[in-house]
Amino acid sequence: MEPRILDAISSPRDLKVLTEDELGILANEIRQEIVAVTSRTGGHVASSLGAVEIILALHSLLDCPKDKIVFDVGHQAYAHKLVTGRLDAFKTLRQYEGLSGFTKPDESPYDVHYSGHASDSVSIAVGLAKARALKGTDEKIVAVIGDASLAGGMAFEALNTIGQAQLPLVIILNDNEMSISRNVGALVKHLGFMRATKEYRETRDHVQDFLEQRGKIGESAVNLGRNLKDSLKQLVIPNAMIFEQLGILCTAPIDGHDIHALRETLASVLEADGPVLVHVVTKKGHGYAPAEADPETFHGVGPYDIESGALKKKTGGAPSWTSVFGEALLHEAEQDPDVVGITAAMKGGTGLTKLGEKFPDRCIDAGIAEENAVGMAAGLAFGGKKPVVAIYSTFMQRAIDQMILDNVLSCNDVVFALDRAGLVGDDGPTHHGVFDLVYARMMPGMRVFAPADEAELVHGLHTALALGGPFCLRYPRGAAEGVPLPDSPEVLEPGVARRLREGEDVAILALGRMVGHALAAADILAESGVEARVVDLRWAKPLDRKAIKNAAKTKLVVTVEEGVVTGGVGEGVLEILSEMGEATPTLVMGIPDRFVGQGKVDQLFKEIELDAEGIARRIKQKLQS
Amino acid sequence: MEPRILDAISSPRDLKVLTEDELGILANEIRQEIVAVTSRTGGHVASSLGAVEIILALHSLLDCPKDKIVFDVGHQAYAHKLVTGRLDAFKTLRQYEGLSGFTKPDESPYDVHYSGHASDSVSIAVGLAKARALKGTDEKIVAVIGDASLAGGMAFEALNTIGQAQLPLVIILNDNEMSISRNVGALVKHLGFMRATKEYRETRDHVQDFLEQRGKIGESAVNLGRNLKDSLKQLVIPNAMIFEQLGILCTAPIDGHDIHALRETLASVLEADGPVLVHVVTKKGHGYAPAEADPETFHGVGPYDIESGALKKKTGGAPSWTSVFGEALLHEAEQDPDVVGITAAMKGGTGLTKLGEKFPDRCIDAGIAEENAVGMAAGLAFGGKKPVVAIYSTFMQRAIDQMILDNVLSCNDVVFALDRAGLVGDDGPTHHGVFDLVYARMMPGMRVFAPADEAELVHGLHTALALGGPFCLRYPRGAAEGVPLPDSPEVLEPGVARRLREGEDVAILALGRMVGHALAAADILAESGVEARVVDLRWAKPLDRKAIKNAAKTKLVVTVEEGVVTGGVGEGVLEILSEMGEATPTLVMGIPDRFVGQGKVDQLFKEIELDAEGIARRIKQKLQS
Repeated sequence: MEPRILDAISSPRDLKVLTEDELGILANEIRQEIVAVTSRTGGHVASSLGAVEIILALHSLLDCPKDKIVFDVGHQAYAHKLVTGRLDAFKTLRQYEGLSGFTKPDESPYDVHYSGHASDSVSIAVGLAKARALKGTDEKIVAVIGDASLAGGMAFEALNTIGQAQLPLVIILNDNEMSISRNVGALVKHLGFMRATKEYRETRDHVQDFLEQRGKIGESAVNLGRNLKDSLKQLVIPNAMIFEQLGILCTAPIDGHDIHALRETLASVLEADGPVLVHVVTKKGHGYAPAEADPETFHGVGPYDIESGALKKKTGGAPSWTSVFGEALLHEAEQDPDVVGITAAMKGGTGLTKLGEKFPDRCIDAGIAEENAVGMAAGLAFGGKKPVVAIYSTFMQRAIDQMILDNVLSCNDVVFALDRAGLVGDDGPTHHGVFDLVYARMMPGMRVFAPADEAELVHGLHTALALGGPFCLRYPRGAAEGVPLPDSPEVLEPGVARRLREGEDVAILALGRMVGHALAAADILAESGVEARVVDLRWAKPLDRKAIKNAAKTKLVVTVEEGVVTGGVGEGVLEILSEMGEATPTLVMGIPDRFVGQGKVDQLFKEIELDAEGIARRIKQKLQS
Repeated sequence: MEPRILDAISSPRDLKVLTEDELGILANEIRQEIVAVTSRTGGHVASSLGAVEIILALHSLLDCPKDKIVFDVGHQAYAHKLVTGRLDAFKTLRQYEGLSGFTKPDESPYDVHYSGHASDSVSIAVGLAKARALKGTDEKIVAVIGDASLAGGMAFEALNTIGQAQLPLVIILNDNEMSISRNVGALVKHLGFMRATKEYRETRDHVQDFLEQRGKIGESAVNLGRNLKDSLKQLVIPNAMIFEQLGILCTAPIDGHDIHALRETLASVLEADGPVLVHVVTKKGHGYAPAEADPETFHGVGPYDIESGALKKKTGGAPSWTSVFGEALLHEAEQDPDVVGITAAMKGGTGLTKLGEKFPDRCIDAGIAEENAVGMAAGLAFGGKKPVVAIYSTFMQRAIDQMILDNVLSCNDVVFALDRAGLVGDDGPTHHGVFDLVYARMMPGMRVFAPADEAELVHGLHTALALGGPFCLRYPRGAAEGVPLPDSPEVLEPGVARRLREGEDVAILALGRMVGHALAAADILAESGVEARVVDLRWAKPLDRKAIKNAAKTKLVVTVEEGVVTGGVGEGVLEILSEMGEATPTLVMGIPDRFVGQGKVDQLFKEIELDAEGIARRIKQKLQS
């Protein structure tokens, strides 16, 4: 193996001695490393390949960790990890106890924040800039944000603040022409327009020349009209840029794979005394042909063959929860013309692709804008439609208020399909969907259903649409249980559990994927002579009071849920037992009161004793105590 | 009393026979009615007075309830209530079981949604417009939104969608030059600039003329460049309007108190085949001199004297929780230069005014942008500062994800001061802060403190800043308990309760304002020979295990909290009892699993049995069962 520049880079300081040609070579080495590792570990390949030059240009100019780079979402930051002392550890990317797939302050002083949810980088950069102003220090602050993330409301709020405060700050708009699925929204069209127009600068210059000749403006107006107070400037410069109207100086688009151009522009804007947005155009997957050709697949991908780019998918096995949901939703939409699907930049991820193909008018992708997605759902419901909002559990945290105020308060007919609920595996703590049972349960009138298998998911969706009213359906990431799907879906009775295994010693009340673990735990317990009843609660809300009453006749009532214990379903069961005056001993199991790390879900379940062995062990301990 | 036109209006249809002069007279009558009623009931006077002509113009042109008007926040909609059959009921505004101060679908078919939280109207209007497109119907859809609400991220997300979808839709930007406190952000500057520039239209015309002469564009370009696909149009029309760049046709500013101008413009834009933003300039409090002179006081106001505008404030009495917090925060900021206050358009409402006066650099008003406020707090914390984010409990629901992802996950030193926690009274269900104990408790590592009186609030804030880490401090609206304030604040030990009353029959574990109710309930119980211990839990998280263990030695463990039972502190106590293997009977009291209405808090507490009598009664019932 030839010696690599990459192997000589122990910190960003080492980049400062490299020529731009050498930085270009290093960029290629980094790409090879990213492909070599992610072909085994999986990961966010396309965006990380697209951002290599941006990251090298920044680190070659900045003095991190004193200077701060805030990566939005953070899945584009692999090159950043490789040049900040994490080359050796990079092979553990997204593995149990390995490197995170996002920036993570616990992992490196070069990482500013736990990234993972879109559109927060600008707010954090503004906060850092305000702290700097108060301290009187002079560190540089840079936010790196993609075009799709910039359409999130939080980013707009932050841009609005920046324009007002005029704090020195560089925002790198990494404009890669696609978000997780496809870009939506007028802002993106606007960017596309800016990219497409060759005459952009010429026309601007032309109009300015004209106006200057007429004596309407002075020489200073060529400075792009940054100061909104100077209204004339704004008026006469037809730059058609939203950002400048918000008071942020904006560069013309530059090539995000041209290290020289990037360094030249960045060196200049890093010295500016106000906010600057650097418009960088990159190509997702740049430098690796399979990812360039199919950046959507290579957005977040499992292991793959380097040569062909073919995914190393397991053949056979159960379908994913997502695909079962997508099929079921399509079926419901075929039966009922009022059903409308809504997602937020995760059409493929939530299984809505087929709905969109068959009924394009009835499948809405709001982009990275969960608040608007849930608000639009309310409007659709008020207009007599039956919206089904499919968003990952973790991202729905962005729209809890819109669930309550815009939907639950008026008891709208709306289904929230929370995909990726529970532990998600490799993405780790920023993406685990472990809070939804709590936040959904606290909403008055909300029904919450957690299917134990994919047949139940089909029934659950059908039930949600048949019953009306606000309804949460939550199910995990990955492969389902492999049970046969029903020929026709049934309407289930709310608050009615089902008993799956008889037993009079212990009653295990489980929910969702934990039902399978509970059944396996019951088998283990039976070996020790403990007969455990297993009840699939089905409903986190309303809870089955009768099943709980019956459970109290055993020696121990156990609850098992794939969500945080604090505020969760187990505590709800305790409250019903309290109300009934039942004094049976109880054991509440679920996600503990700490952030769970990354890794294969089986590893994680084992760690927190939510695997069958762990459940059986804790029940035995409790019975012995 | 002279006959009024207002008395003859039983539905908006009646407006259609009025001349514009008569509509003008009606506007004055409506203002008098609003002032007459709100001078007794209190209410959102200034914004409702400002929007009278907009509402009359709309209802004189539209055919509601078939057509839809979506009011953002809804506190400007009093005139709408008065012309939609609610004149007689208007005197019950904001009273127990009376008319809501916001739009409320349960109250009238003319009200589209439960309004109250800012920035959702555009999303709902888009949803309605999508439903209309699917149904093939032709109702008109209008959103009425203030300039401050438009700066909220959710509104931007919706505008971004509209520009893309090009659905016919009218957005009335009610630009009244102030939000609840003062406007912030570049967007508002931008609006101010649009207002201020007399040459706006002339210059635009001038540049267009020039370009047309040069033959660069055709005649169609005079249509304000709505279609973004037509890039040239966008390029050459220097309209400097953010909304048009998002693909939304935008009118020049019009006088919002000129019925003729409003009707003329609205009649035309309601026929448009795409989205139009009508820029209307109004004056808050228009037509009532005291409100015009001090619109901030008359934003949300209690009873007042009509003649002078003087507030009918109770003299003496305890200070408000808010003012005690504001003083305490100022004191902490004086002691520690790292303390920075942040709020979201509620500087006065959260008591931050004095901090802003003394330390303007250390008091940040993010505007109606809770997500950015909490994101900036993270940035400030990463920059070594100690942000204190003061936001009403109900509005913090907008930034739960930012609390978790940006702050709690990295264990930032940040204090969330949740004002208006618990029942807020007249504003009703959209504003009760009854979910915070649940959503704060579910976050790993979050400390949650609920002071029982204002001395505890002072200690609590000091403790939060002294301990570091993420911390929620939640306290109610209105007058505090009237106890003496400490000379110097103390650092309290997390998870340590205090016993306020001895008793061995029953142990009442209470929190916040409920501690006072519990003490009074204990006195009532003592009359029946039941000796109740009263423990101020202080901490919703971590809970005091020792106090709970001791409570289990009595005959009944009672928890009382001013928050929803489902997922609340009471359930947390049950979980600890379960873990300890304690079988003592328990009684969990708190806000029931339904939305509580409006009215004086004492009326509401009585209704839900959280007053002293109710607590004592339920304890007696439980002891007898």
